[in-house]
Amino acid sequence: MVYLKIRKTVSPSPDKQGHTRGYVIPIGGAEERANSPSILEKFVSLCGGDSAHIVIIPTASVLEDTGDRYVEIFRNLGVKSAVSLTINDRADAGRQVHLDEIAKADGIFMTGGNQLRLSTILGGTDIAQKIRKMNAMGVHVAGTSAGAAIMPQHMIAGGSMGNTPSNDGVNLAPGLGLVNTLLIDQHFSQRDRIGRLLTAISYNPYMVGVGIDEDTSIFIDSDQRFEVVGSGTVTVIDPSDLSYTSMSKASGGDTLSLLDLKLHVLSVGCQFDMGQRKPYPPPE
Amino acid sequence: MVYLKIRKTVSPSPDKQGHTRGYVIPIGGAEERANSPSILEKFVSLCGGDSAHIVIIPTASVLEDTGDRYVEIFRNLGVKSAVSLTINDRADAGRQVHLDEIAKADGIFMTGGNQLRLSTILGGTDIAQKIRKMNAMGVHVAGTSAGAAIMPQHMIAGGSMGNTPSNDGVNLAPGLGLVNTLLIDQHFSQRDRIGRLLTAISYNPYMVGVGIDEDTSIFIDSDQRFEVVGSGTVTVIDPSDLSYTSMSKASGGDTLSLLDLKLHVLSVGCQFDMGQRKPYPPPE
Repeated sequence: MVYLKIRKTVSPSPDKQGHTRGYVIPIGGAEERANSPSILEKFVSLCGGDSAHIVIIPTASVLEDTGDRYVEIFRNLGVKSAVSLTINDRADAGRQVHLDEIAKADGIFMTGGNQLRLSTILGGTDIAQKIRKMNAMGVHVAGTSAGAAIMPQHMIAGGSMGNTPSNDGVNLAPGLGLVNTLLIDQHFSQRDRIGRLLTAISYNPYMVGVGIDEDTSIFIDSDQRFEVVGSGTVTVIDPSDLSYTSMSKASGGDTLSLLDLKLHVLSVGCQFDMGQRKPYPPPE
Repeated sequence: MVYLKIRKTVSPSPDKQGHTRGYVIPIGGAEERANSPSILEKFVSLCGGDSAHIVIIPTASVLEDTGDRYVEIFRNLGVKSAVSLTINDRADAGRQVHLDEIAKADGIFMTGGNQLRLSTILGGTDIAQKIRKMNAMGVHVAGTSAGAAIMPQHMIAGGSMGNTPSNDGVNLAPGLGLVNTLLIDQHFSQRDRIGRLLTAISYNPYMVGVGIDEDTSIFIDSDQRFEVVGSGTVTVIDPSDLSYTSMSKASGGDTLSLLDLKLHVLSVGCQFDMGQRKPYPPPE
C-alpha cells in the first residue's frame, strides 16, 4: 500500500496555488554548446527564448570562470539576460541579492563540478528552498553533470566504476529534492557507472535508476513524464518487479545479485512515464 | 509459434542414443588458477577428478606455451591425464590423432586468445563436429574468454566498448553451436561490454544475452539451466518482452532505443532457466 502511494504521488512539493510545475532537466554532462546544442536550445526555448532571464548557479565548480562561460553560452544562444550568481560558501547562499535574482528567473541552470560542493554549500539554505519553490511555481531548472546529480532527493555522491554492483559500490547523500522517485547518474556510459546505479537501487528498490550519457538529458514535465533530448542514451533500470536481491546478506564489497529488473535504453525522442513506469518510443 | 518453438527446443543437436548432454561451461576469462580456483575445480570434479582425461584446445592463442600452461594447471589440480592438442591451422584440425584424443576425453577445455582464430581454424572441420558430438554424448566442454565466446551458435567476434548500444557496435560470426539460445560475451564488466551485447540482442531479439565477468562462469546443464560459479557477476539481458527497438531505422552508428528488456545480475549460486527464462536466487 505504501509502495502504491509513493508511486502515485510522484511529484515532490506540489504547489498549492495551481501553478504548473516547471521542467526539471538533468543533463549527463559535456552537453554540446556550439554546434546544434539541442539540449540548451530546448531549455532556452522553454524559458521564453531571447527574452528569457536565465540564472546560473556555478557553485559545483571551483573554476572561477565557469559561471561567466555559461553567461556567454546562453548569450550566444540569443538570451539577452543571463546572470551568474557567485555562491562559494554558505554565507553567500543566504544573500538576499541572490534570492532576488532567482525570484526573477525564467530558468535556473546549475553547472557541473562536484555535487558534494553543491549539496554542502546549498543544502538547507534559503537558496535551496527558493529553487524548489520557483520550480513548483513554473520555473524550469536544468543542471549538467554535478548539477544533474544534485536534483533528486537521494543524490549519488560518488562510487565505483564498472558494471558490477557491490554492497559498498556507491555513496549516497541527500540532494535538492526536485525529483523524488528517480536516482540519477550522469556521464553514464562514458564513466561506466551501471554498477553504482544498480547498487544505489538495491539499497531501497522503490526508486527508478536513470543513467544519463554525456550530451544527453531528460526533460521531466509536470505530469512526471520525461522525454530524452541529446545525442546519447538514457538507461532506465526499474526494480518494480525485483524478485530477489542479495543486498541484505552482503558485506565487505561482495558483488550483488539482483533478479527481475526492467531495463530500457532510451535514445532521443523516447519518453518515460515515471508514474506508470512505462517507456514509449519516439512519436512517429 | 516459431518463437515458442525456439524457446522450447533450447538444446542444440540433441543426442538420439539417450545420452545426457555434458555441461557447457563458458568462463569470462582470467579465471583463478592457483588460490581457490573454484571454476576449474568444479570442472575437474564434473569430469571425474583425479582420474579425468582433459583435452586442451589452445588454438585461440598465438602463444606457444598456452596449452602446456593449462596442462600444468590441471595437473596441479590433481588431474593425472591432461593433454594439449597443437592445432594451428585447418590441416592440423583434420588430423586423426587429435580426433582420437577428443574421443577419449572426459572434459574439453578451450583456452583464451582470439575467438576468430578458433572459428576460422576449427569451423567446419571434423574437430568442431567431434566436439559438438562428444558434448551431446556427455563430455563436458569448458572455455575461457575466446574459448567461451566461440561456444554459441552466434559468436560475438568484436565490437565497441561502452554502455551505449549503436547499430554498428558489434560484429557477429558463426560460432561452435554448443548453445543456441544465448549470446555470450566475456571480460564483461572489466571491458565494459554492455553496449555491444545490447546491440547483438537487438539484431534479432530471440536470444538471451549473457555477459560473464572475469573469474566467473556459468555451468549449463543438460536441462538448459545454468548456475553461476566464480567471484564476479553474470549479467543476463532477456528481450522476451521487448516492446520497441529503433534498430530497423538506425544507420551510421546511431545510438539505439530498446524498451522493456529484462535484466538480471547474478552472483555465485544464482541459477537461470534458459527454457523458462527465469532466474533463481542461490538455494538457502
